[in-house]
Amino acid sequence: MSSQYSPLIDELIEALRCLPGVGPKSAQRMSFQLLERNRSGGARLAKALEAAIDKVGHCRSCRTLTELDECLVCANPKRDRRTICVVESPADVLAFEQSGDYRGVYFVLMGHLSPIDGIGPAEIGIDLLVERVKALAVEELILATNPTVEGEATAYYISEQMRQLGVAVSRIAHGVPLGGELEYVDAGTLAHALKGRQRFE
Amino acid sequence: MSSQYSPLIDELIEALRCLPGVGPKSAQRMSFQLLERNRSGGARLAKALEAAIDKVGHCRSCRTLTELDECLVCANPKRDRRTICVVESPADVLAFEQSGDYRGVYFVLMGHLSPIDGIGPAEIGIDLLVERVKALAVEELILATNPTVEGEATAYYISEQMRQLGVAVSRIAHGVPLGGELEYVDAGTLAHALKGRQRFE
Ligand SMILES: [Zn+2]
Ligand SMILES: [Zn+2]
Repeated sequence: MSSQYSPLIDELIEALRCLPGVGPKSAQRMSFQLLERNRSGGARLAKALEAAIDKVGHCRSCRTLTELDECLVCANPKRDRRTICVVESPADVLAFEQSGDYRGVYFVLMGHLSPIDGIGPAEIGIDLLVERVKALAVEELILATNPTVEGEATAYYISEQMRQLGVAVSRIAHGVPLGGELEYVDAGTLAHALKGRQRFE
Repeated sequence: MSSQYSPLIDELIEALRCLPGVGPKSAQRMSFQLLERNRSGGARLAKALEAAIDKVGHCRSCRTLTELDECLVCANPKRDRRTICVVESPADVLAFEQSGDYRGVYFVLMGHLSPIDGIGPAEIGIDLLVERVKALAVEELILATNPTVEGEATAYYISEQMRQLGVAVSRIAHGVPLGGELEYVDAGTLAHALKGRQRFE
């Protein structure tokens, strides 16, 4: 997939492939589109990448990605600090924020327990979570890790730690999405929804 | 689709949307993926964008995108200068080069005639094409503009210019792709293939 006529364009096509979901054909289409029709957009993207890569680190309270010392959720005095929602990634925080319903704060594991990859409690910040639960006198910890084997194991591990601190622990509900048609729901979700069925009354 | 917790990440998500085919959700996924797992890839992309945007211009002979004064195809002494293939975009050059079969040179219109958008012969470089055809004593001009209304009109216009110069003009074949199953071919292509049928003997 070498163009044989421009090392700089070849390098741009190669570099675009670091983006998830971008194969050789779309990287090529993106490169030409930027160079032919949207150089100002491309320049803006280069600047945004540089700034974010250079300055974005982790919130000292919840570990999410932010360029601030403490993220805007943690720093917001209107958020309820007695409820912490534990998620695996910053994208999950965004999803909850966009749902618009949650008024507590978050704790972002930046992953999940995975002993085989050397990711233990220290790597997902459990010490900081315990410290924070104590400092904020947290009343409820909501576990919103992914409904995968690793996510469930991580949720279980954290719930055990929290029980020792006397904190109420809950797990978000998993099942068939609202408005989802059964025939399009994957088998794992359906099995989970069946297992988690509740008496209808 | 504002994260409410990081202006720099918000800006990165917005900036990624200048890429064709990237909606808000994938821009978000790309941002987090780069910041969480591939900062070196992101930094490489920023540099590649800056360099390409800053340095890539047009080949003085064929108008394709290149950072060189003359592109590597035009500068290659082994290419046959008596055959010019006329295409709409640099991506088309890449497609022909990847097919590996073409040994002539190119001329890149960087678009097609579109009077309604103010794009006439001057904007697609017809003067330069005529000048080049004369200078290189071109024997065959292959029209490979897209099989769209505008592409066909552009091909027709160029063929008229070339006839006045006594240059042989051909048009690449359009039809059902090799190995393509008829039922998956779009109606326009099928109609074109039918109209362009040749006696079977
Ligand atoms: Zn925070
Ligand atoms: Zn050239």
